[in-house]
Amino acid sequence: MAIKVIGFDADDTLWVNEPYFQETEHKFCALLEDYLPHHSVAKELFKTEMDNLSLYGYGVKGFMLCMVETAIRIAGQTGSHRVVEKAIEFGKELLEKPIELLDGVEPLLISLREKYRLVVATKGDLLDQERKLKKSGIDKYFHHIEIMSDKRDSDYLKLLRHLDILPEEFVMIGNSIKSDILPVLAIGGKAYHVPYHTTWAHENVEAPVIHDNFLRIENISEILRYLS
Amino acid sequence: MAIKVIGFDADDTLWVNEPYFQETEHKFCALLEDYLPHHSVAKELFKTEMDNLSLYGYGVKGFMLCMVETAIRIAGQTGSHRVVEKAIEFGKELLEKPIELLDGVEPLLISLREKYRLVVATKGDLLDQERKLKKSGIDKYFHHIEIMSDKRDSDYLKLLRHLDILPEEFVMIGNSIKSDILPVLAIGGKAYHVPYHTTWAHENVEAPVIHDNFLRIENISEILRYLS
Repeated sequence: MAIKVIGFDADDTLWVNEPYFQETEHKFCALLEDYLPHHSVAKELFKTEMDNLSLYGYGVKGFMLCMVETAIRIAGQTGSHRVVEKAIEFGKELLEKPIELLDGVEPLLISLREKYRLVVATKGDLLDQERKLKKSGIDKYFHHIEIMSDKRDSDYLKLLRHLDILPEEFVMIGNSIKSDILPVLAIGGKAYHVPYHTTWAHENVEAPVIHDNFLRIENISEILRYLS
Repeated sequence: MAIKVIGFDADDTLWVNEPYFQETEHKFCALLEDYLPHHSVAKELFKTEMDNLSLYGYGVKGFMLCMVETAIRIAGQTGSHRVVEKAIEFGKELLEKPIELLDGVEPLLISLREKYRLVVATKGDLLDQERKLKKSGIDKYFHHIEIMSDKRDSDYLKLLRHLDILPEEFVMIGNSIKSDILPVLAIGGKAYHVPYHTTWAHENVEAPVIHDNFLRIENISEILRYLS
């Protein structure tokens, strides 16, 4: 069956994201190195994020709240408020980062938009992701933007119902095996993995994917070749 | 032209919300009363919320970050971390509040669902609003849930395009003149105001509304009478 809709993940598929988070985490760990070594702070932060994930969901605001909580746990009741103040400041800087499109993204969208309906399917904070799309200047190429609280099988099924297409008419492109690839394959869609050089630990999947509807692509521009 | 779709605001239209926020704010002010009188803390918190609104948008997580920022500003660099810890704790409690439907909501939805497409159009954090709808048990009556980063004219136009209806085929029901009524009237839709006994200062509008497509209703059940 012919592909009608192409779904794109946003963070680290269309534009740079994880390196900005890592830069923030690095500054946060440096801030607390009087109390704990760098890697231990990082471990504590990740633990806080996992503990709160079902309550906060994905996105920068939840990440900021986790930095605050971790800072207090590490610095203790008597620590200076400066660590919390800095954590908030780092988070605000993260929200205001410029958008840096990845190589080949815009020419690819221009080539594909004639023949397919293009959609963005991304997790994160609603306002933040909308703002990033607007700042990116590529929002005009998309037929629909779906900001999702999670990317499980059922979330993709809802998206396809909403787009009024069958799974066989959908291909998803993204950098996360866990969020962009496995659930889409599970519901009968196609999924093309474009790995990014760095991935958030929570999105890591160890086992290799072997599936007829799966492709691993080094550069997003190669997609053109596989679609035709 | 006949109404096809009825849009419902969620917080303080379908269920109790603002009283929970006010209860949290009250506890927050009490926490800081060693530093400042109650009403001055409330004023500082509102100022922080307004300063950060364009960056954080609406919802509990942004509110939590504002409590943290305000606590530090008021307690100073040397204050105890306990105030920040409590602010986070209050926010988490707010995220886990039970859902208390307002009087007459469920019977109304049951009556209307046969004849109209019902949608929810609400601001706030994506995951939090989805969770509240699920907890409420009334999600099954809705054809579509739209969680919006803002409720301006353009946001409603986007919603109507998405629902594939004309403004004349739409009526919006909500407690906020600013968010649920004025923008819908501006684009040519109908808007029914069901006031709630308390409203967040940011949503307050002073001038009375006079418009052919506007109705003020005391209890949400009365809507049935006006629709037929």
